[in-house]
Amino acid sequence: ADIQAGEALSTSCAACHGSNGIAQIQGYPNLAGQNEQYLVSSLKAYRGKQRRGGQALVMQGQATGLSDDDIVNLAAFYAGLPAAGE
Amino acid sequence: ADIQAGEALSTSCAACHGSNGIAQIQGYPNLAGQNEQYLVSSLKAYRGKQRRGGQALVMQGQATGLSDDDIVNLAAFYAGLPAAGE
Repeated sequence: ADIQAGEALSTSCAACHGSNGIAQIQGYPNLAGQNEQYLVSSLKAYRGKQRRGGQALVMQGQATGLSDDDIVNLAAFYAGLPAAGE
Repeated sequence: ADIQAGEALSTSCAACHGSNGIAQIQGYPNLAGQNEQYLVSSLKAYRGKQRRGGQALVMQGQATGLSDDDIVNLAAFYAGLPAAGE
């Protein structure tokens, strides 16, 4: 995984999930320190429109343009951030 | 929300998500310190079988028997745990 490439992509995520992976908005998940494989499978489930409910429509749109490599890189970036924020 | 009731229910979650909300298994999310409203909407999306993909079938089954109050209480319990584990 290319963490720097993931960080570059993460600018699209920061408005909701926080630049440090700690969401500032109720209803949005923190991503910092999250399990890496879980982040991969979640993004793929949003991209494939398998995940519905809640705010899933937002994430379906966000994930549409991501390649498998993009997803792996984003997951590595967020998994590596400190869970308690910084 | 009744955090003690949530803690009592959480024994069913601990095998995969850890007794402290930190998953010990690749592919499962940490729950400790997660956004409370996100936990509520996620559990409802699993219960309603709207969330598919990944390990969603496992969670659909786990969430089937939960009432709205159960979900609120579980979310409050996990949201209150320290995100970095303990």
